[in-house]
Amino acid sequence: MNSPLAADGNGTGVCQTLAVVGVGLIGGSFAAGLRAAGRVGRVLGVGRQRKSLDEALDLGLIDAVASPEQAAREADIILLATPVSAMGAILGGMKDALSSRAVLTDAGSTKADVIEQARLALGDKVAQFVPGHPIAGSHATGPQAADADLYRGRNVILTPLPENDPQAVAHVASLWRACGARTRLMTPDRHDGVFAAVSHLPHWLAAAYVHYLETGEDADLRFELAGSGFRDFTRIAAGSPEMWRDVFISNKTAMQAELRALRRTLDRLEAALDRTDGDALQQWLDEAAQARRAWQPGGKRSD
Amino acid sequence: MNSPLAADGNGTGVCQTLAVVGVGLIGGSFAAGLRAAGRVGRVLGVGRQRKSLDEALDLGLIDAVASPEQAAREADIILLATPVSAMGAILGGMKDALSSRAVLTDAGSTKADVIEQARLALGDKVAQFVPGHPIAGSHATGPQAADADLYRGRNVILTPLPENDPQAVAHVASLWRACGARTRLMTPDRHDGVFAAVSHLPHWLAAAYVHYLETGEDADLRFELAGSGFRDFTRIAAGSPEMWRDVFISNKTAMQAELRALRRTLDRLEAALDRTDGDALQQWLDEAAQARRAWQPGGKRSD
Repeated sequence: MNSPLAADGNGTGVCQTLAVVGVGLIGGSFAAGLRAAGRVGRVLGVGRQRKSLDEALDLGLIDAVASPEQAAREADIILLATPVSAMGAILGGMKDALSSRAVLTDAGSTKADVIEQARLALGDKVAQFVPGHPIAGSHATGPQAADADLYRGRNVILTPLPENDPQAVAHVASLWRACGARTRLMTPDRHDGVFAAVSHLPHWLAAAYVHYLETGEDADLRFELAGSGFRDFTRIAAGSPEMWRDVFISNKTAMQAELRALRRTLDRLEAALDRTDGDALQQWLDEAAQARRAWQPGGKRSD
Repeated sequence: MNSPLAADGNGTGVCQTLAVVGVGLIGGSFAAGLRAAGRVGRVLGVGRQRKSLDEALDLGLIDAVASPEQAAREADIILLATPVSAMGAILGGMKDALSSRAVLTDAGSTKADVIEQARLALGDKVAQFVPGHPIAGSHATGPQAADADLYRGRNVILTPLPENDPQAVAHVASLWRACGARTRLMTPDRHDGVFAAVSHLPHWLAAAYVHYLETGEDADLRFELAGSGFRDFTRIAAGSPEMWRDVFISNKTAMQAELRALRRTLDRLEAALDRTDGDALQQWLDEAAQARRAWQPGGKRSD
């Protein structure tokens, strides 16, 4: 082995053969980022849609199309970048062919459910699966939207399993860092609770609210007179229904807990309105405004 | 009278003396818009904060500072652009001095409550009060933020009283149109229901949600990992706590009705999640995404 890439193998962030299952925005950007960083040899693309695979080939995101079995045999890193509901079946299809040196990871936005699917599908090979979640996205989708810089400065959460080899975890982390991301470790349950609260719950509320307006009285006039507050508050409700259905079902337990807890807050605030308690309303609105004004994307709050 | 403005008096949108109570963004922009359109002679500014009045003078938004009584005697159009909670007291202070030719209007974001205050304060002079609500705003506040083009292309709702002279209503409408706005008439209750739904309810939910996060578990990590969906969904929660407290209290009846109705939607959607009903969730999310994608600011939906 005299390839310049051959020196790796211990977590310094190079892979000989990467396989990406799902060659859209998320998978394509991972391949593009690693390629731009000179950290990948060959890239295999796996997917069900021939059109997307052809586009990924034309764009140079992948070098060849492969079956799940071929990817399992040949790749040393395999990223699952498909809807979470599909991951169990894909892993099941790879299990028997999976090379012992391969490290599997994923980009699913929920973790406990994906891990449960992975345990069922991979059995004792689950130690090769390092669960992950890159916190990045775009309104655009598909291979055309792939961008080597998508992950630059973004967070990638890894939720390692007790069975994982620490070197495998370090290797996955180093590849994400090669794409410009910051990586952090978390338990799957904490991950799922955090993202239920800061991502899934806002989507639930925005979509519930739009549905409420759409099906309620005076809908046409209401939509007509809605302004910039409505525009921003509801923007996320335009997101992919399929993806969000999967997220809600996949993260059901955490979502139920968040919805119950939020309801207690809503109950308390409605009670303050019912008794026309201006002081309580003012205190609530003050605290919320301060918290929101202090917030900055991606990190430290100014207070 | 040989002023070029003197020909008016029957609703063609000119006023000799305008008084603006509250010389901030809303009142200042009305004065600036009418001045830019050549539709106003003298502008009197009324307010409690000397600093704001001096700024408005320096900026040329107003020609002179006046007391409420002086404005009531001298102005032919008086715009109340103060928090709705202050309007009753201001109208009460103007009643005795109010010239019979004066037309009062307001820019409050709720109408039934303002009208109730106006009836109590003005008694049989309430016929001179034409309630209104310009649907415009900005993050900026104060006289410095005033902009002659703030109302261009925006909606202004008027909710006339049975007692109003139709010419007075037409006159107020023509002044708003001179600022570039579109005017429409509506009953106060319909107005309050529509804006409870499309403006006040989103603010309530965004602020309740931020408060929930702030006071809940893992708050620091949650704010740290919040992304662009959170950013847009919660933007409005940073708005003025005083203003929104007043709005919620002033529009209490309509808000309570909206909150109850929204809860029925939330109950139904949570029941679908509880039974892991993917079809029901998908249908809901599809309809919400379609409605949001079809929506365009300020008007017609593309479907």
